[in-house]
Amino acid sequence: MKKAICLISGGLDSSVAAYIAKNKAYDIYALSFNYGQRHEKEVKCAKKIADSLNAKKHIIFEIDLAKFGGSSLVDKKKQIRQVKDIEEIGKKIPSTYVPARNTIFLSIALAYAEIENAQAIYIGATSTDYSGYPDCRPEYFKAYQKLSNIATKKTIEGGTIKIKTPLLDLSKAEIIKEGIKLNVPFQNTWSCYQGGKKACGHCDSCLLRLKGFKEADIVDPIEYE
Amino acid sequence: MKKAICLISGGLDSSVAAYIAKNKAYDIYALSFNYGQRHEKEVKCAKKIADSLNAKKHIIFEIDLAKFGGSSLVDKKKQIRQVKDIEEIGKKIPSTYVPARNTIFLSIALAYAEIENAQAIYIGATSTDYSGYPDCRPEYFKAYQKLSNIATKKTIEGGTIKIKTPLLDLSKAEIIKEGIKLNVPFQNTWSCYQGGKKACGHCDSCLLRLKGFKEADIVDPIEYE
Repeated sequence: MKKAICLISGGLDSSVAAYIAKNKAYDIYALSFNYGQRHEKEVKCAKKIADSLNAKKHIIFEIDLAKFGGSSLVDKKKQIRQVKDIEEIGKKIPSTYVPARNTIFLSIALAYAEIENAQAIYIGATSTDYSGYPDCRPEYFKAYQKLSNIATKKTIEGGTIKIKTPLLDLSKAEIIKEGIKLNVPFQNTWSCYQGGKKACGHCDSCLLRLKGFKEADIVDPIEYE
Repeated sequence: MKKAICLISGGLDSSVAAYIAKNKAYDIYALSFNYGQRHEKEVKCAKKIADSLNAKKHIIFEIDLAKFGGSSLVDKKKQIRQVKDIEEIGKKIPSTYVPARNTIFLSIALAYAEIENAQAIYIGATSTDYSGYPDCRPEYFKAYQKLSNIATKKTIEGGTIKIKTPLLDLSKAEIIKEGIKLNVPFQNTWSCYQGGKKACGHCDSCLLRLKGFKEADIVDPIEYE
């Protein structure tokens, strides 16, 4: 049986990526992070998604990235920007950027993959409708693949751990359409950077999600303020 | 002022590497990990070394690598081998190998370097008198450097974060001689994989240390059983 480590944040993209792994007949080993993000709503959604995927295991890994500060996503004193014009998104790396986040998450996934003898790590990064984070770009994942090919006992002994980024070149609308095909329960996903009862509708992440649903001509099942 | 993140485990190699950074006029930002290793003696030694270096900060980062198991260094049920013949060391990756450990540690150091605007990360890896870990080899660090050049906001905007491995090609005896030159307080370093009052003298790490001191013709100031 093929095994995949699936990084599941509770957001829309990582949920679709994990459903793609499932559809390719991988057994799912879900991995989520409690990293000092401003709210725990994401992790609750991640649990629901892992459940609906029938994951063999779901590890919630505790790692305190707020220890260093440096990002409005982990530092409650810093304000998250409310974007007025969606065209602003992606032009400049915003304050929600968490230094080396994907590098840290992939490294922990690499350890998990080696221990479970998994063949793949699925991550829902996208470089199309995105916030311009450096660790979401195709060249970044190519460099990470090269590193992981020589970083572990498994890989230097001839085993494979493939970093799979099935959403990398898709627009948000295309990701949503793919998710609909695979029956992703979008009502159990959370994209908003704020942790309110309803999504704020104004942060980068809400705006990209709303634009995606609109372009896909599908109704977003979550509620907005 | 130049800043360096120094990975300090409390062992001999990382202490010498940090003293080399200090000698190159870097301000020292020490980073140690409480990662579920079998004993906390290492972390206590790391604190003493960071103190003696006059580190600007010393962060002890908690990360539970025992969560996945898979190594005798983090799994108390697994036995650490007692090597009878030192020639065995390095021929086969031993059970003390912790999957992706350096990849995880460097990734967290990368985040810290970006937040502190540090120019370098010092790590005391060596590929000469070592246990054959894949993430201690020169090609591994080359691949990590390539990754880090494009992984962060700082590096893609033209800043530099250099992965410094000053001990990579040195034998244990050469590392010890370098440490003597720089006044490294070897009495405050701990290499043994066991957490006894005195070092066991029989694990890979003890044997490599003892051989190094013998070849350097210097008395090891720590006590052995």
